[in-house]
Amino acid sequence: MLLLSDYQNIITEEFSNLHIDKQPQNLYEPIDYILSLGGKRIRPVLTLMAADIFDGDHKKAIAAAKAVEMFHNFSLVHDDIMDDAPLRRGNETVHEKWDLNTGILSGDAMLILAYQYFENYEPKVFQALAKLFSKTALEVCEGQQYDVDFETRDDVTIPEYLKMIEYKTAVLLGAAMKMGAIVAETTEENTNLIYNFGLNLGIAFQLQDDYLDAFGNPETFGKQVGGDIIENKKTYLYLKAMEFSNTENKQQLLHLFSIQPQDNTDKIESVKAIFNSSGASQATQEAIAKYTEMAYETLEKMHLSDDKKMILRLFGDKLMNRKV
Amino acid sequence: MLLLSDYQNIITEEFSNLHIDKQPQNLYEPIDYILSLGGKRIRPVLTLMAADIFDGDHKKAIAAAKAVEMFHNFSLVHDDIMDDAPLRRGNETVHEKWDLNTGILSGDAMLILAYQYFENYEPKVFQALAKLFSKTALEVCEGQQYDVDFETRDDVTIPEYLKMIEYKTAVLLGAAMKMGAIVAETTEENTNLIYNFGLNLGIAFQLQDDYLDAFGNPETFGKQVGGDIIENKKTYLYLKAMEFSNTENKQQLLHLFSIQPQDNTDKIESVKAIFNSSGASQATQEAIAKYTEMAYETLEKMHLSDDKKMILRLFGDKLMNRKV
Repeated sequence: MLLLSDYQNIITEEFSNLHIDKQPQNLYEPIDYILSLGGKRIRPVLTLMAADIFDGDHKKAIAAAKAVEMFHNFSLVHDDIMDDAPLRRGNETVHEKWDLNTGILSGDAMLILAYQYFENYEPKVFQALAKLFSKTALEVCEGQQYDVDFETRDDVTIPEYLKMIEYKTAVLLGAAMKMGAIVAETTEENTNLIYNFGLNLGIAFQLQDDYLDAFGNPETFGKQVGGDIIENKKTYLYLKAMEFSNTENKQQLLHLFSIQPQDNTDKIESVKAIFNSSGASQATQEAIAKYTEMAYETLEKMHLSDDKKMILRLFGDKLMNRKV
Repeated sequence: MLLLSDYQNIITEEFSNLHIDKQPQNLYEPIDYILSLGGKRIRPVLTLMAADIFDGDHKKAIAAAKAVEMFHNFSLVHDDIMDDAPLRRGNETVHEKWDLNTGILSGDAMLILAYQYFENYEPKVFQALAKLFSKTALEVCEGQQYDVDFETRDDVTIPEYLKMIEYKTAVLLGAAMKMGAIVAETTEENTNLIYNFGLNLGIAFQLQDDYLDAFGNPETFGKQVGGDIIENKKTYLYLKAMEFSNTENKQQLLHLFSIQPQDNTDKIESVKAIFNSSGASQATQEAIAKYTEMAYETLEKMHLSDDKKMILRLFGDKLMNRKV
C-alpha cells in the first residue's frame, strides 16, 4: 500500500503528462485545459487505493482511474454550462473561455475518451468496467436532472433529495472504488461491499458539503460560505428546517429563500439561525454520522485483513473530518 | 436475406416499442421524442444487412443497430444546439421544445444508452463493438469540430473538406456495417473491407448531398434546395468552383458568399451558374462516381458469394441513385 499522497501524485503525474496531441486543436485544447486545473483527484485515488486494498496492482488500475477522472471532468464541463457558471477551480469555465459549442463538443469527446481507457483491459474486465461505468454515468445524468427539476419544485421530500445526491455524487465514488476491486479481480462480494462503502461515504460527504456550505470556516472552506443560501438552494439543511419549523419560521424561511438582496449578510445570518434553532443543523450532523457509520459497517463484512480495513476506515475519517 | 424494407420495418418496430420507462421524466421524455420522429434509419439497416450478408443472424445484430441509431440521434440533438436549428424532421428540435439544458443532458444520456446496447453481447464481441464505437464516435466529434472551424476559415482545402465529411458522416456508415460483420463473426479481412465499403459509399453519399442541395429536384429533395448557398456553406461545389474559377468569377463567388439577401432567388441562380460554368458541378459528379466506384472495388475483394456482393452493389446503387 502507498500513502494517499502517493496515489495523488501518481494521478497528478498522469494528467500532467496527458496532453492530447490530436487534431482538431479546438476540440482537444479545452480538454487539456480543464484537466490541467487540478482539483483534489479524490475519485481516481479511490480507484488506485481499492486496487491495492484487494491485493491487486494499483499500476494496473491507472487506466480505470483516469476514466473516472475524465468522466468527472466531463460532467463538470456540461454542468457548468447548465449552471451558467463563470468559474471552475478559480479559472474560467470552458464555455466561458471558449464558447457554448466548444463546451458541449469537448465534453462529449471527454465522455468517449473515458470509455477508451477501458480498452487497456482484457475483454472480461473491459466489459465489467464499461458496464459499471455506463450504469453510473447514466445515474449521474439522472441526478443532475433531478437537481435541475428540484430548482422549480417546492415539494421536494427528504428521500427525493437523498436520491438526488446519491445519484449526482455518491454513485461515482462507489463506482470509482468498485473499479479498483474489479481490476484487482477480488471476490464479487468484496466488489459489491466496497461499492456500498464508497456510496455511503459519498452521501455522507455530500451532506457534509451542504453543512459546511453554511457552517464551514470561511478561512478554509474552498467555496464562498453561505453560497447555497445566497442561491436559495434547497439543501438537506433547508428541507429539514422546513420539516421541523413552526408555521411562523416556515413562512420566514420561505420568504428568505425567495429574495435575492444586494448584501446577503443579514439573510445568511437569519437562515443559519433558523437552521440551528429548528434542529436542522443537528439533524444534518446526525445524518452525516449515520451514513458514515453505514459505510464503516460494510467494512466489517468484507473479507479483508484488519490492517486493510483500518486503512479504509482512516481514509473515511480523513475525508469526513475535513473542515474545508 | 430480407428486403431493405423488412430491415427498415424491424428497426421502426424496435424504436416504436422503445419508450424508456424510467425516471426522471424530463431526462427520458426528450429521448423518446427524438427517436419517435423517424428518419430513414439507414445506419441501423446497414448493421442488420451486414450481419445477414456475412451469414450471421440479423436478430443478433439488433442491439448493435440500435446503438448506432441512438448515437446518430445523440449527435443530431447536440448538433442542433450548435447549429441553433429550430426544426428536425419537420418537428421542433429538443432544445427548442424543451430548453438548452435538456438538450445537453438528454443528449449525454443517449450517448451512454448507446454504449449500454453492447451489453447484450459476450465480452469479446462487446469489446470489439465498444472499441469501434468509441473510435467512430470520437471521429464524429472531430468532424463536427472541423465543420464548426471551417465556418470561420477561408483557406479550407479539398483534402480538409473530404476529411471533414469522412469523419462527420462516412465513418458512422462504415462502422454501422462493420458492427454487423463483427456480430456475424466473419473474417477480420471481410470486417475491414465492409468498413471501407461503407466509408467510401458514405463519402459519395455526402458529396451527393452537397450536389443535390444545389441541383436537386425541389419536389423530391427533403430539404430546401439552395439551403447551403443561402447559408454560405463552403461545400465541395463551392471549393471546386473557387479552385477552377478565374479571378473575376472568384471575386463574384466571394461576394455572393458574403451576402445574406432577403430574397435569395437571384443569389442561388448566380451561384449555380458559376458552379456549372466553372466545371465544379462536373467535378463533384466525378468525385461522387469515384468514391462510389471505390466502394464497389472493395466489394470485389471480399470473400463472399457473388449473390451477396450483388445485394451490396444494388444497395449502393439504390442509395446513390436517389434524387431526393
